[in-house]
Amino acid sequence: MTDIHRSVSSKRWADVVVHRGVARWVEVADDTAGDLRAQTGQVLAQVDATLAVLGSDRSRLLEVLVFLADRSDAATFDEVWDAWVPEGHPPVRALLQAGLGAGCRVELVVTAAAGD
Amino acid sequence: MTDIHRSVSSKRWADVVVHRGVARWVEVADDTAGDLRAQTGQVLAQVDATLAVLGSDRSRLLEVLVFLADRSDAATFDEVWDAWVPEGHPPVRALLQAGLGAGCRVELVVTAAAGD
Amino acid sequence: MTDIHRSVSSKRWADVVVHRGVARWVEVADDTAGDLRAQTGQVLAQVDATLAVLGSDRSRLLEVLVFLADRSDAATFDEVWDAWVPEGHPPVRALLQAGLGAGCRVELVVTAAAGD
Repeated sequence: MTDIHRSVSSKRWADVVVHRGVARWVEVADDTAGDLRAQTGQVLAQVDATLAVLGSDRSRLLEVLVFLADRSDAATFDEVWDAWVPEGHPPVRALLQAGLGAGCRVELVVTAAAGD
Repeated sequence: MTDIHRSVSSKRWADVVVHRGVARWVEVADDTAGDLRAQTGQVLAQVDATLAVLGSDRSRLLEVLVFLADRSDAATFDEVWDAWVPEGHPPVRALLQAGLGAGCRVELVVTAAAGD
Repeated sequence: MTDIHRSVSSKRWADVVVHRGVARWVEVADDTAGDLRAQTGQVLAQVDATLAVLGSDRSRLLEVLVFLADRSDAATFDEVWDAWVPEGHPPVRALLQAGLGAGCRVELVVTAAAGD
């Protein structure tokens, strides 16, 4: 009876929120022990998993804000990203350096069209 | 006769913009003389006030991007946030360190479902 | 037959994505040889050009996240911005310092109502 659907497993934040056909979420690697390449592979796999739960897929991403702890990681991030992003259907993307949580090398703020 | 509703008190930016049921706004503490704890309490109270004007409330927040001037303020921010965020209805949240305006310790980019 | 419209000229990202009447895109100056003032003028002209393609205009901007490489550029940015932003119809705006690409002094994450 609400227009907002949340997946919640933490008191602090929602895993994903869907409103009027738009899903929003934030993704960091579940395991931050790895380097940037490992974390990027992991975080993009997590995005795939979230999209699948939403009945959506990579081709329905609208916007991805990429925050890297270290700007010099950008080339490696792009390498993994380029192999992942669907040809002809990339989202809008910004890549910025910002201060992230301890151990975290990459954080994504994702907006996607929900599946419906 | 427009689909966009703005609350405007400055030439430079809108206080809040509502479009198709989604409200967007940016919040910094009205008084930046206080420390991070004071500014966080203040900025969250301001979010409540904006939500009330929108006919909305905390449980209808969709996404909050938290920018802190100092990453080491995160634990204190979380303490105040955890006491404020509605149980079972938290928004998606990213917490990032970025360069803010003079004196400003915390800045929020907020997306919420409008009340309608 | 899709609800998502993309303008794509790169494998890596879309130039603009429109979904349910909302356009999202990221703008950096096409020529990053200039200083902050030059890049700001350029990037705002590019926003105008994108809006025109969308059948939209400056008065239909919803949110602009401004990322500056150097926080001390804010006053100059504001000067150019103030002359550009439509009176009475400004978007929500955050201005933050973050690490940008080589040579890039300003990057905008733009959300606007599409023209329809």
